Amino acid sequence: MSSPWWQQSCRALDAHAAAAAARRQAQLTKPSGSLGQLEGLSLRLAAQQGCERPSLERIWIAIFAGDHGVVAEGVSAYPQAVTAQMLGNFVAGGAAISVLARELGAHLEVHNLGTVEPQPAMAGVSQHQLAPGTCNFVVQPAMTAEQCLAALAVGREVALRAAAEGCQLLIGGEMGIGNTTAASALACALLDAPLDELIGRGTGLDSQGLARKTRIIEQALSLHAGERTPLDWLQRLGGLEIAALSGAYIACAQSGISVLVDGFICSVATLLAVRLNPGVSDWLLFSHCGAEPGHRHVLQALDGQPLLHLGLRLGEGSGAALALPLLRLACALHGQMATFSEASVEDRTP
Amino acid sequence: MSSPWWQQSCRALDAHAAAAAARRQAQLTKPSGSLGQLEGLSLRLAAQQGCERPSLERIWIAIFAGDHGVVAEGVSAYPQAVTAQMLGNFVAGGAAISVLARELGAHLEVHNLGTVEPQPAMAGVSQHQLAPGTCNFVVQPAMTAEQCLAALAVGREVALRAAAEGCQLLIGGEMGIGNTTAASALACALLDAPLDELIGRGTGLDSQGLARKTRIIEQALSLHAGERTPLDWLQRLGGLEIAALSGAYIACAQSGISVLVDGFICSVATLLAVRLNPGVSDWLLFSHCGAEPGHRHVLQALDGQPLLHLGLRLGEGSGAALALPLLRLACALHGQMATFSEASVEDRTP
Repeated sequence: MSSPWWQQSCRALDAHAAAAAARRQAQLTKPSGSLGQLEGLSLRLAAQQGCERPSLERIWIAIFAGDHGVVAEGVSAYPQAVTAQMLGNFVAGGAAISVLARELGAHLEVHNLGTVEPQPAMAGVSQHQLAPGTCNFVVQPAMTAEQCLAALAVGREVALRAAAEGCQLLIGGEMGIGNTTAASALACALLDAPLDELIGRGTGLDSQGLARKTRIIEQALSLHAGERTPLDWLQRLGGLEIAALSGAYIACAQSGISVLVDGFICSVATLLAVRLNPGVSDWLLFSHCGAEPGHRHVLQALDGQPLLHLGLRLGEGSGAALALPLLRLACALHGQMATFSEASVEDRTP
Repeated sequence: MSSPWWQQSCRALDAHAAAAAARRQAQLTKPSGSLGQLEGLSLRLAAQQGCERPSLERIWIAIFAGDHGVVAEGVSAYPQAVTAQMLGNFVAGGAAISVLARELGAHLEVHNLGTVEPQPAMAGVSQHQLAPGTCNFVVQPAMTAEQCLAALAVGREVALRAAAEGCQLLIGGEMGIGNTTAASALACALLDAPLDELIGRGTGLDSQGLARKTRIIEQALSLHAGERTPLDWLQRLGGLEIAALSGAYIACAQSGISVLVDGFICSVATLLAVRLNPGVSDWLLFSHCGAEPGHRHVLQALDGQPLLHLGLRLGEGSGAALALPLLRLACALHGQMATFSEASVEDRTP
């Protein structure tokens, strides 16, 4: 029996292109290392694109939305209806990510994996409606095995379509009232770190709300305790949109598309993707470390060096979109700067 | 007798526009505070531009170059000729800042305040040649009082011309082999911090070079010790390009142009500008905290919150240019996002 799609090999990086890029970088008219983190970034993109001078023109942003049963426990500062209401805002152009996609010339698409109320057809939103949101994971698994696999597959389809259209880099974004609770629960299950460092205020809980959220997650961890695979954890504690993100990241790595990871929830989906298929890690770039305290731990577990530290906590892929110009400028510098000999500038005294 | 130009009032911020911008920001479809540092940035730009929805279209980048007599002491990893050689690279389009200015659609201009060898006329470079570089400040003051004032005035003229052409934000950049030594000496004179936290490896000194640089700065501080004004310190320990930057920053603040501060050397020039005229601080935005250890201290003294922490140490205004897209995206988000009522999205439960 062949292995399931998510375990199949990821595309290999191009070591030859990376070496050529490193030789070029060493000759550019700047002190070696003086562009800091941007230097490694352009080499990594060279390895991913198989090209001495990488570029980032064709960018896809895919937003995955879904509702969360655990919201019944009072873990969010916003009403659950906001998940569905924001779908309209994404496609009407008024959400943060809509503004950013427009400014960056990026393709934006919106996938509703499952809101509590079925949504009417809406131009620009793919309605998958795999379930009326997840179940409350304090009481039972968030998803059935079938729902979880179907959500992974939605993400995969997005990545395969992006690959077919020549996309060079994908930004996944999420929308789902309550999804920092699901992401924190997953982080607690997957990482060996103190719970209070993995659970935060999300969109703006007060101290009482934070204490309740922590209690709820402890209850869920105790209900679902046991030796479990990453896929089990995803099904029991995850969200439909989180599973779709994991599926998209895996299929990007299999198709040779760079992934620019957004905030806490996307980073947890990335961690799951890497646990499901370690080859994914070659294709990851990390945009930012946000305000949610668990983000730092998840990034550490992924060995991720984020570009921005701006205290962001919006989601929607917005932090990744904000970091995109830095990647593009890193490519421009790497590709367009003159070498010492081209510019007749002396290199450092040997 | 009227006060000299650099002490004359800076333009006042527009509190009315800032309040209107804050009211607008509170209604945008995002959790309050979720855009982190970018939220304060758009309010600050609103106050500077006197406009509820600021924008950043007309950007000037001015590079100031000059040589440093202290290079005779062996404080740089690069030969002194590189200062002049880079002038050609700036205008030919091969330097990092040339690539960035092109990508950002920013106006770029290059001013040679004074290299060791006079330079032939070169299209695109303004040759001021106030001196054949500074004098070696281990032996005597770096500049005469006249040279220092003339360098300040070059910066002022740039800012006044930028203002006349409708520039909204100025990025100052610098080029000068040896100028981290001058900047560190100035930081030591102006700040109360341990010397070894203010002196670093510049473009790439080894440990022996760093020890020599430290010794040279100690010697200079002891030679010039005494009760001195900021202007005295600038004249004794500064550089022609550092003085020009300070002059440009002061005149920007007087003309109502936002200043995006680049790396360590530009931050020291900013500190001098603020000491010469405290009103300058209202007009400052801080792009990054770089690899040079003193940068953090100078930013603290300026109460500056940098946007990027990428380990940059190139100069030329490159770190500020790299941060510009974040400022532009902050403006786009602030100006274009829908409000909760426009988008029919519910705000948080009260």
